[in-house]
Formats: sequence, C-alpha cells, structure tokens
Amino acid sequence: MLITEPHHDGSPLYVSDSGPKPGKKVTLSVRIPNSYPTTQVYVRIYHDGEARYFPLKQDHSAKSKTESWWRAKIEMMNEFNSYRFLIANGAEYTWLTAAGMRDFEPNSNTDFRLIARPKYPQWISERVFYQIFPDRFATSGKKRPLPDWAIPQEWEAAHQGKYKSGGQDFYGGDFAGIESKLPYLQELGVGGIYFTPIFPSRSNHRYDAISFDHVDPLLGGDKEFLSFLKSTRKKKIKVIIDLTTNHVGVGHTWFEKAKKAKSSSKSKERGYFFWDKKSPFGYIGWFGLASLPKLNFASKQLRTALYQGKSSAFQRWLRAPFSLDGWRIDVGNMTGLYRDEDHHDGVVREIREVIDVVNPNAWLVAENADMQTKDLDGSSWHGTMNYQGFARPLWSWINKNADVKPGGQGMPVDMPVISTDQFVKTMREFNGGIPWRSLVASMNLLDSHDTARMRNIVGGDRSLHLSAMTLLLTYPGVPSIFAGDELGMEGAWGEDARRPIQWAHPESWDHEFLDATKSLIALRSTSQALAHGGLRFLSVEKDHFIFIREVKGESIFVVISRNPLASLKSETITPKGFGLEGYISFFDAEAAQIWRKQG
Amino acid sequence: MLITEPHHDGSPLYVSDSGPKPGKKVTLSVRIPNSYPTTQVYVRIYHDGEARYFPLKQDHSAKSKTESWWRAKIEMMNEFNSYRFLIANGAEYTWLTAAGMRDFEPNSNTDFRLIARPKYPQWISERVFYQIFPDRFATSGKKRPLPDWAIPQEWEAAHQGKYKSGGQDFYGGDFAGIESKLPYLQELGVGGIYFTPIFPSRSNHRYDAISFDHVDPLLGGDKEFLSFLKSTRKKKIKVIIDLTTNHVGVGHTWFEKAKKAKSSSKSKERGYFFWDKKSPFGYIGWFGLASLPKLNFASKQLRTALYQGKSSAFQRWLRAPFSLDGWRIDVGNMTGLYRDEDHHDGVVREIREVIDVVNPNAWLVAENADMQTKDLDGSSWHGTMNYQGFARPLWSWINKNADVKPGGQGMPVDMPVISTDQFVKTMREFNGGIPWRSLVASMNLLDSHDTARMRNIVGGDRSLHLSAMTLLLTYPGVPSIFAGDELGMEGAWGEDARRPIQWAHPESWDHEFLDATKSLIALRSTSQALAHGGLRFLSVEKDHFIFIREVKGESIFVVISRNPLASLKSETITPKGFGLEGYISFFDAEAAQIWRKQG
Repeated sequence: MLITEPHHDGSPLYVSDSGPKPGKKVTLSVRIPNSYPTTQVYVRIYHDGEARYFPLKQDHSAKSKTESWWRAKIEMMNEFNSYRFLIANGAEYTWLTAAGMRDFEPNSNTDFRLIARPKYPQWISERVFYQIFPDRFATSGKKRPLPDWAIPQEWEAAHQGKYKSGGQDFYGGDFAGIESKLPYLQELGVGGIYFTPIFPSRSNHRYDAISFDHVDPLLGGDKEFLSFLKSTRKKKIKVIIDLTTNHVGVGHTWFEKAKKAKSSSKSKERGYFFWDKKSPFGYIGWFGLASLPKLNFASKQLRTALYQGKSSAFQRWLRAPFSLDGWRIDVGNMTGLYRDEDHHDGVVREIREVIDVVNPNAWLVAENADMQTKDLDGSSWHGTMNYQGFARPLWSWINKNADVKPGGQGMPVDMPVISTDQFVKTMREFNGGIPWRSLVASMNLLDSHDTARMRNIVGGDRSLHLSAMTLLLTYPGVPSIFAGDELGMEGAWGEDARRPIQWAHPESWDHEFLDATKSLIALRSTSQALAHGGLRFLSVEKDHFIFIREVKGESIFVVISRNPLASLKSETITPKGFGLEGYISFFDAEAAQIWRKQG
Repeated sequence: MLITEPHHDGSPLYVSDSGPKPGKKVTLSVRIPNSYPTTQVYVRIYHDGEARYFPLKQDHSAKSKTESWWRAKIEMMNEFNSYRFLIANGAEYTWLTAAGMRDFEPNSNTDFRLIARPKYPQWISERVFYQIFPDRFATSGKKRPLPDWAIPQEWEAAHQGKYKSGGQDFYGGDFAGIESKLPYLQELGVGGIYFTPIFPSRSNHRYDAISFDHVDPLLGGDKEFLSFLKSTRKKKIKVIIDLTTNHVGVGHTWFEKAKKAKSSSKSKERGYFFWDKKSPFGYIGWFGLASLPKLNFASKQLRTALYQGKSSAFQRWLRAPFSLDGWRIDVGNMTGLYRDEDHHDGVVREIREVIDVVNPNAWLVAENADMQTKDLDGSSWHGTMNYQGFARPLWSWINKNADVKPGGQGMPVDMPVISTDQFVKTMREFNGGIPWRSLVASMNLLDSHDTARMRNIVGGDRSLHLSAMTLLLTYPGVPSIFAGDELGMEGAWGEDARRPIQWAHPESWDHEFLDATKSLIALRSTSQALAHGGLRFLSVEKDHFIFIREVKGESIFVVISRNPLASLKSETITPKGFGLEGYISFFDAEAAQIWRKQG
C-alpha cells in the first residue's frame, strides 16, 4: 500500500512555533499529494474551547509535480491548543488528524496539539543514549566490602538463563570501571547515558533504594561518580539516572523511621507509607512485595522530601555538584496511585513543574509500560520509555523463531505476530494520542534490562537486528541502546539480558554489527532531519515500510524490512521510485536502507 | 456490510455494576459471534496504573447457535477504571474497545471505563424531554408592561425567514400559557421539559440574564413558575432550566456593581469579569459582544456566587421552593476559559461536585457543541447536548434538498453529505471516547432553537423526518424534542426555528407525524431496553443501518433508513434475517422499523 495521504505533524516543517504563548500567531502547513482531490483546506482549532475554522491558502511557490502545500497563520489563543484539518473536495470532506486521515468526524483525542509551556531540553534531539545497568557494565576490580545480601559472581562466568538468585548476583560493576570505558562509548558515538539506579540498596538492580542521598559505595560512592561526571562533561556526554517515585526499599531510612514511629504525629515519615493491618507485613508493598514499601503521596511532606524541597531527592541531583541532566522515573504509570488514593495526575504535574523551574534543560522521562495518554499530555513527563508505541509493536512485527520469556510482552499470550500494516497502525495510534513533543521527547529502545534482548527476539538473525537498530536510530524520539546490544549480546528475558559485558573477550562480539551500529549512530547524531524532522510514512507493504524524515535542507528516506530487500524491485524501495530526486544512498543493509538528501 | 463483531458496552447486560467502589468485583461479559474465531478472551485493565490481564471464561449455559458469551469477575481497583478486551485466535489478536474492534494495540483513549462516582439521575433514562423556548411556546395573553428592548409581534403572524430584529421580537409566551398546554404535553408523552433561559434579561432568548434570582416577570415571575411546577409535579414531569456559566447580560446586577467599582477592593463583583482597556468597551464580552460580559473564574467569589454558595444561582434553584430537576449549562465548552486564564477543567469539576452533593438526583447537561472528551470523562458534566455524536452526523447523513442556513453546521462549508458507514463511524467515534454513562446521560436532539429544524433538513420529507425521529427515540441518551417538531414545524435556521406554536391553527399541524411520534414516545418511555439497553450495530448498508438494544427480558431491533425500505429484501432488514427469533413488529414506517421482543 502506497500512502498518498495529506500530511502534517508537529515538526518545524509544518509548525512555525511549537510552544506559542497565548496570542501568538503560528503558521501551520499541510502538504497534499496532487493525487488527493482537494478544493479547499481548513484548520479547525479550539479558541477558548470553541471550534473555529480558518481557511488555508495554497502556497503556489511550493507546488511541485507531486504535491502542493497549504498554509495559514493562526492565532494560538490558549495554553493548550488543539487542532485538526478539514480537507474538502467539493461536498466531500476528510479530516487530517494526528493519527492520520479520517473519513468521519473524529473526536478531540486525535487532534494535533501545541502547548505554551517549556517543551523539552533541545539537546536530547541530537543524541543517542546508552543504557547502563551499573553492576554489569564494567568493573575497576577494586576490592570493596561485600554486603550481606550479595552473592559474588565471576565477571566472565557464562550466564545463559541460569540466574537463580535474581537480585542477589553481584558482579561488582562500578563507576571507576565505567569511566575507564568512556573512550569506547565515545568511539561508539554515545551522547548520553541512562543509568538504572545508583543509590545504595539491597540488590544488584538497586530499585530498592535505602537512601537517595548518595551514590552506592559499592559503585564507588559520590567520589567515583563525581570523577566519572567530570570525564563525561569533558566528552560532552549527558548523564541521567533512575528514581523510584513509586516505592523505596524496605531498608530506606524513611521507612526505618516510619516503622519505629507508631503514629504520624511522632514522625513525618510515618505518613510517607500505607499502613494496613490486613497486610501480612503491616504495610503496603508494591505488587505485594514486602521489600518495596509503596509511597503515599497523601503526605505533603513526602512530596517535599521527594521532589518539592530544595534538598529533595529529585532536586539535589539536578544541582551542583552533580548537576545531572535528567531523571528516568521508575514505574511512572503507578506513581501516586493506590486503590482509592489517587494522587497520580497531581504528583506527575508537580514533578514536571519542579523540573521546569529548577532545570528546564533537564530531561524527565518516565517508565510507562502501559501509557495512558494523559501521562504524556504535555503537562506531565517530557516523554516515556517508549515500549508501547515502539518496542512492543516492533517485537511483534520482527520476531523470528524467538525463544524469549515472557513471550507476550506482559500479555498472557505467546509473542504476537503482526503484519506490517498492524505495526505501522500501532505506532500511528500511539503517536496520534499525544502531542508531537511528547513523542520526540520519549526514549525509544529495542530492549532493556527488563526484557529479552533484540538479538534473541530475532532468533539470532543479524540482518533483522540491524533492521531494528536502523529503525531505532532513524525514528522520532531519543534512541537508547541497552549496553551490549551493539555487540550482539544475547538474553532471553530481563534477568538474562543483564549479562556482564565481556571486555576481555572481544572475540565474542559481533564486530560487523558493531560497525554498522556506529555508522547509524554517527548519522543519528549529526542529521538535523533525524533530530528535528517530521515523520511521514510513504509506503506500507507486506514485509517492509518506508518513511521519510525532513527538515528544511535535509531529508532522510528510510526502508525497514523484516525480509531481505534484494528480491524487491528497486522502484518500490528507492526515493526515485517515489518521484524524489537528489537522494544519495547512505546505508544499504540486507533488510534496511537509508537514503539522504542534503541542501 | 453485516457487522459480526464481538461486543461489550457499559450497559447492564455486560457490566454487573457500572459504578463500583474500589475493591468491588464486577462481572464483565463479552458476546462473540460464532463466526468470529476465538480461542481465548482476556480483559486488560489498569490496576493502580498498570495493565493487568485476566482471562474470561466461556459461559456454556449462554451459548447459542449464533454466539457465545465470555465472562470474568474482576476487581475494580481504583476510582477510574479503564479496560479493553484482547481476543485471541491462536497467535492472532484483536482488541475490543469502546470504539469497536481494532486489529492493532489501541491507546487508552478508547478504553471502556467504570467510575466509582455517582452516575446520573436514573429517572432521565426513562423519559422523553421536550425543549421549550419560553417566548414562543404558548401565551396566556395576560397584559404585562412591555420592556423598552422589545418589539411586540402578533402570535399568529406568519414568520418565514423574515426575522430582522433577532432577539427583540417579542411574542409574550409565559408560564401561565405553558401550564395551559400541559395536557397536550402529557398526551404527547413528555416526561421532562428543558426550558431555555427564564431569567430576566433584555432579549427574547434571555441568554443575557440581568439576574439569576427570579423568573422573568414577563414570563409570569416566580409565582406563575411555581404554579406551573406544582402542575408538572402532579403530572410527574421533570423540569430543567438553562444557566449561562460563561457570561451574563450587560445589565446583570453583578456587572452593574462591577462597573461602578473601579477596583476589586471596592467590590467583589469587579473580579467576576475581565477588564481590558484595549477592548472598545473596557471589558471582555463573549465572542466580542458588549452585551455579554464573560465571567472570570479566577475570582473565588464568583464561584461562590454562581455555584458553590448555598444561595448561589446554581444551588438555589435546585432547592425548595423550586426544587428543579437539573440544569442545562449554556456554552459549557467555553466556561472558565479565556486566553491564558484557563480555569475550565477545575470549574466544571467543581460544579459537578456541587450537584453530586446538593442533589445527586438532578441532571447536569451542558452545551458542548464541540465536545472535548475530557468534558465528558465522568468527573465533569453528566452529559452533553449531543450535537457532535448525534445531531450533526445525522444531518449530514439524512439531509435532502435542504435549504438551511448555515448549511455547514458551524463548518465553513456546505452541508456535508456522508455515507451510512461514515455516519455510524462518527457515532462510534464519539461513543468510544467517553464512558458509557456519559453517552446515556447526554441529551440527543434532532434540532434546537439554535439550528434549522429537521423538517427543513430533510427538505420537507415526512418519512425521512420520521426516520430521524425514530432514531432519536431509540438511541442511547435522553431524547429531547424541540417544541413544534412533533407538528412538522419548519425553520431554516436557528432564529427561524423559533416560530410560535400555532395552537389556534391545528390545520397547520402534521397530524400523521404527530401520531407516529406519540407512539414512538410511548415506546421510549416504557421500554427497559431503550432506557437501559446497550447499543449493538448489526448492519450498515448503503442507505440504512440496523442496531439492537437489549436488557435482560427485552430487545429492540431498529432499522433506520434514508430511503424507502420497501425495495429491500425482508431478510436484510428483519430480525429473522439475522437469526433472531421471537420479535414482533412494533413500528413499520416507510424508512424506519422497530421490532420488539419481550420475555
């Protein structure tokens, strides 16, 4: 299916200002294929809650043999502005929405949106992130006292699905070790690092923090971390870390104090948690786990301690001496919500307001495995870890002989197998429910410490893995590579995916894949079209799809396939075949292609 | 196209409790045609913000030759519960959402929703409303002093598009007159009356109230209104009136006080409005009209005066001696929103909280010509005047030689002409964006004092008008008939539609249409299926569609067409043709049919 739809999205090619103050006039542009019969185009926009229609004018200077452009300069009346386009062909009408074309009147859920608020830090658009699980990336080998919970493991021991002790296997990765690998990351082209938690805890994953005040001494403490940060700053690599706003570890100082107190009058910390005599351990743990007391945001003092106070966990790491570049929020979707105590929306919006004030140049990206659209409405997280609109549908589309667990992506069923059409529809559905800015500020990923690795999902097929990597590095949003993916590392489920990187055994690496990934990262980090361009699907076929990303002066044409492309006729997969001139082949893999046009 | 989709909606046949408190277990049921390959069914529901999956079990006792039922008893964890169904056929998956079936993973916008809050007054479901524009319905002929703004008109003067003086034409309808027509309304079968504003003002439409304290003396004042209410109560007819929360008239006592004061310290009323030296009249009027000063909800005192105080406008009319049965809110979509002052969501939710406390048995229905889904999310208005999901698409579908203005329903284009498929899609899109309760508590209408009359939209074709009336009286939501529609009255636009009812000239009435409407109202007022049943589309063809509404013990099968049905084969439009037994023909018109099954 060749998509010959009218197009608009929130990127600069179509919107002159994506964060207009009320009263500001913004030029909105729509491009319409000449094959799409059009007599008039209107924008329907809410002004003070009422829909108004304004005509667009055809820009005759921009007409080409394939398409025409229509534009209107429209006042954005409010802080949140919703709009869609009505395309008339005589008495027939279709609607252009954020989720694509509709031949019936859509509701407001798929409107395009412009928001008069701080957007997201601009630097995220031009960087490729790299996710590090600190215990497993690299170790300095320094001897440190082993905590009682830990079961020490040899770095080079083979681990293939044999983890039995889960959170207790301890490999001893640390910041001195990580710092020593910065040259590797720099050569790879990494522009930002996302660390899963680095606070002291009672597990290797550290999602059960016992304090938010310091870096875990097992990782080298604040000192090694500051040294590491000094190096990353020199190399212009940004660093974000992971905060559990949903729960703390049972050993957390807050919880210790709360346990000792019998009433909230004796300790403010008592109010930070849910106490329930019917619970087997007297309090509410996340998912029923005693190890993870759930935080209770009915407590204003908790809000102060966690994010509203100057010395709160959230704020202090954004300030000197750490001056981190953002937060990844764990279990963002559940934060503040427990049965009839629903503080979720308020807490999320307060956290966003804090970052907008304290450091609008810091990134706020949350784990929202099951995204509700209100969580990405422009007043909440900048973006999400994009499982729903990227990773999960990608797995369902590209998986091949996958032997992964759980196969169903949190679903109670085997790994779904979907068509290319379904894959693209799922992405467009996701994108159509949120403002463009929330897509661009989301973190895309092929996999993570919580999932099987992509190499396993594609059944070891390097060309499919490379096709997935090409999509990751060309799609809107911040690409994040889980450490080791670039080496072709394997892992059949989350725990298994946390294998230590085998620095001493480069013969185990997939160097060909690494090289290809490097060139993709290089493109992603330097292309304005990939950083700031729109997303326009050109073709959706049985086993491949084509999209194009454009800014003024640069276009990137991307073909993503789950089959070798060799058997297809070139006019179906090359820019020329789509009537597009001036493109040069940039990347030509078995199941993925990139073409670039500059100037 | 025959629709053979799995089905679920928020009606009692599918949901054992539609307002469950957190912790309550609710049985959810899905019916699946035997032709739809199914190996397993799951419900995906958010628990504390995280999606969980639970299997449904096939109810073998309910299996028939055409369909099977699947059920699960699920804990509703939170105040707002969102869910959808995953239907598996081996490794293929489809999703059952509130907007229908999806072959890709949908986002949360089309989830079904159950909400642990007061729903809506149950009495609205079993009643047919009747909209009265007080100046034009009936007059007692009592002589009253004529106000300076009024241009007196003869009740029986012909009015066919010749209104020039707009809001000043004064016919002198009053409550004594209306009361005298109660026997007519009772015979018609009316169960509720919605009055456009009845407060003193400077126009015949009274949307420019000068006080919310009393009934306009021109209508007979509080005394005649109370007499009228005594009669309606005897006849068990409910009464709701119209409140402008968006603006008041320039002559309103609040605005008079505000004008006199130069600062807010001198008068709390000063803060009720927007003052702007750049405005030609010094303040902000709605739509730029000097006559309608826009209300400014930054003022907490305005909120007290308008709806939060015990003697506020909103509350006092819900209390004795008036004890009205609800409010229709004018311009609900714009209330509280002006440029960067956005209090809309907060104000709407506060108003809803007030009604939930003061009188949960009163109906809160707002004019939301351009519905944003958040305005009907279950914490805001009970429902909307359903232009978007009912009246407008109906006009676009059924219009015939229409000579109406404006033709485009607020759109800058001619009256759209849509296919039956587009019509049904538009309704399903609307319904899929809101909780079931918000659809059922909305007010459906064919037309109103703001639009052309349906008789004109169908170009005078009685059978099409009757088809539309059949839809109105069988579709989920509260039917509301604009006074005179049942007589076949005409009007080519809003102002023209406000012609006085010609009581003295019954020869001008369409008695055949009136009789048919009476029998439809009688069915609507006594059928449990129409009051409380779900909505399942069975068939969407070129010029007709069929839906079914069911509760335990009763089913209503409805055929709505825009062409005579005679030429169609009976098996395509009768229950038997769909394998449904036991139905009896209840209503058989040229372009609409109703079949009923009881027991």
